[in-house]
Amino acid sequence: MTLVELCENKQVTDNIRKVSEEEGVSTEFLVDGIAKGTIVVPANNKRKFAKPIGVGTGLRTKVNANIGTSPDHFSIEEEREKLSACILAGADAVMDLSTGGNLTAIRSMVLKESPVCVGTVPIYQCACDTVAGGGKITQMDPSRLFDVIEQQAEEGVDFMTVHCGINKETVNILDRSKRLVGVVSRGGSFLVKWIKANGKENPLYEQYDRLLDIAKKYDVTLSLGDGFRPGCINDANDAAQIAELSVLGELVLRARQAGVQTIIEGPGHMPLDEIAGHVQLAKKIGHGAPLYLLGPLVTDIAAGYDHITSAIGGAIAASAGVDFLCYVTPAEHLRLPDAKDVYDGIIASRIAAHAADIVKRVPGARERDFEMSKWRKERNWIKQQELSLDPDKFAAERKKLPPREEDVCTMCGQFCAMRDE
Amino acid sequence: MTLVELCENKQVTDNIRKVSEEEGVSTEFLVDGIAKGTIVVPANNKRKFAKPIGVGTGLRTKVNANIGTSPDHFSIEEEREKLSACILAGADAVMDLSTGGNLTAIRSMVLKESPVCVGTVPIYQCACDTVAGGGKITQMDPSRLFDVIEQQAEEGVDFMTVHCGINKETVNILDRSKRLVGVVSRGGSFLVKWIKANGKENPLYEQYDRLLDIAKKYDVTLSLGDGFRPGCINDANDAAQIAELSVLGELVLRARQAGVQTIIEGPGHMPLDEIAGHVQLAKKIGHGAPLYLLGPLVTDIAAGYDHITSAIGGAIAASAGVDFLCYVTPAEHLRLPDAKDVYDGIIASRIAAHAADIVKRVPGARERDFEMSKWRKERNWIKQQELSLDPDKFAAERKKLPPREEDVCTMCGQFCAMRDE
Repeated sequence: MTLVELCENKQVTDNIRKVSEEEGVSTEFLVDGIAKGTIVVPANNKRKFAKPIGVGTGLRTKVNANIGTSPDHFSIEEEREKLSACILAGADAVMDLSTGGNLTAIRSMVLKESPVCVGTVPIYQCACDTVAGGGKITQMDPSRLFDVIEQQAEEGVDFMTVHCGINKETVNILDRSKRLVGVVSRGGSFLVKWIKANGKENPLYEQYDRLLDIAKKYDVTLSLGDGFRPGCINDANDAAQIAELSVLGELVLRARQAGVQTIIEGPGHMPLDEIAGHVQLAKKIGHGAPLYLLGPLVTDIAAGYDHITSAIGGAIAASAGVDFLCYVTPAEHLRLPDAKDVYDGIIASRIAAHAADIVKRVPGARERDFEMSKWRKERNWIKQQELSLDPDKFAAERKKLPPREEDVCTMCGQFCAMRDE
Repeated sequence: MTLVELCENKQVTDNIRKVSEEEGVSTEFLVDGIAKGTIVVPANNKRKFAKPIGVGTGLRTKVNANIGTSPDHFSIEEEREKLSACILAGADAVMDLSTGGNLTAIRSMVLKESPVCVGTVPIYQCACDTVAGGGKITQMDPSRLFDVIEQQAEEGVDFMTVHCGINKETVNILDRSKRLVGVVSRGGSFLVKWIKANGKENPLYEQYDRLLDIAKKYDVTLSLGDGFRPGCINDANDAAQIAELSVLGELVLRARQAGVQTIIEGPGHMPLDEIAGHVQLAKKIGHGAPLYLLGPLVTDIAAGYDHITSAIGGAIAASAGVDFLCYVTPAEHLRLPDAKDVYDGIIASRIAAHAADIVKRVPGARERDFEMSKWRKERNWIKQQELSLDPDKFAAERKKLPPREEDVCTMCGQFCAMRDE
């Protein structure tokens, strides 16, 4: 039985118990949310890992970090470093988005070494294999795509991005949408090209039941990809994006019927004032499925700092109900990120998630800020360090310019306002 | 005549012409806004500088950077470096908040070398002088405070933070407010201690007309300080903060009567969902005066990254109507910032300001993102670099890992979704 089916039968699994402890919510709450589809616990039944997470309504906002190689740069050692950075920085989930080098070997390393759930985008492997075999993206073989999906499920991948909302109809809407930058999702762009070149329906949409069968067999969580996510402020919330979202909403219901966990993916670039409304819409159209958002980036012009543009959008989105934030690194739009970028991206995203958890009144969130500020007032630097989001950074920065008197900092020295005289 | 009086007489000054050109708004719009008090152009009549700014409704969101020494660390050379970082990073205004070393010499250097308007907090000098003379903060002499204010005005300081909203009444409310961290504004804490120790009224409140006379003589813009700004999430929007704001609203009207430009200062730490409401309230209680906000920081726990927590809050605040953002650096809560922190803080704040200007539909904001994305789609890296917020950073990051083919980046290489095949 899948986790959804177990929860429909009020079964409490080990993972549910772990999540319950970690979140400070009851197992009943989790069982109920998973059965309804408002919560997922991504975990392939072939894989055991140390830190399962719950993603969804009523739970702490989670952060995913994308790692992986590209055709221009690939090294399994660097991927291992990035994975270490993920763990150190506190990512709740990791996606291996490799498109260069030995994909199976890299994925195998990630699946083996990651203590958190692992996601992939199987179409990348299918595309890479096709190109490696001398073919074009438009020559991808649908049955090969399903083979890859099954292979990765068999290996233990916990959640997979599948761009099932791209179909002939939504591609037509896309074509009429007069976008400034078109499709910026890699997987999405592969499928649009494939549909147009072959005049055929997207196999992930057309054979969605086949996909559900595989997902069910391994209890893989389907992350319904947003192939039409906006790649610039101008394209946000256009007809194409909303049409795809609408299809995803239907597919959520079909997955639930099949006992398969689903997440809906969203945004990319979006003006700040459109985010909360979009989230509300996506929760409604998505029948309350957990929302997984990239960014959103609130401006297009800040390449080099897109972890910050994303933290702004992510904090607002999560405050409005988003459950799962996909980080963006400072390298976005410029190059493949390295381990430091991964680290910085995760921290920025965790700040956004925590700022939102304060709003969501997630158990423990406000309490941590309260505790931190209590010790700040006491000028207890050890306690502050312990409670801070990144204790190593806290210590390193403070050490750069130590104060004359232990209990203050060099910002104000003896004039520290926290001193009562 | 002061700028307000000139505008009441429909006079268009050189500074107004410059601001009009820079903003792409009419001089009539500016004259009207300055006369009404919804716009200020801080500029001491004793000082000429290259880049005057307009701050207020209908204009681009501006960014201020605080520099300055502390009793624990002071070097005029480092301050010069920080000032250079301000200019390089694109700060619209600079405040010299020095409290260590030769304050007059440092301020003189900043006033001489800054191409943007310069602000100070005169009570710092009064406090430092008092302490240097062997006295305590509580022994500050009110007439000495006014002498310092006049001296700094005479030197050309364009805007000054004056904590006029702290008075016996609001201090009583503060005492009943059961704050977690009390008063965190340095100037605010000096005045609270002084009022309590002396049992007298805050001279800046009691002799507000004397302050207005000085401001009028030199056309100094008064930045009405928020001595009770919350220093943690828990203390946000408490009775003390709102009581002080209420006093500031009254003082705005008295300043307008006197022909003196005023700004109202606000937030500090504040939960994300309280920001927009607070801004709305402050605009109302403040009679539409330009709002100048520190942060706001949307969590207390991210020391080392408070430029990010502030960018989140600042973007939301400015989208809701805030006109002027005071940056926060990554060194906040840990130590005195250095030139790199200053640079990073300004960039983060400029991202917030720009994200808000997209929402405010400030002329040119959306257009710049559109242009950037157009060239991104074309994969024209030169144009993208030119249009980016920080072109040097853009170039440096991209160069770290150059792609095999010029027109893409190493993130996706040949699989770049921007390529139409």
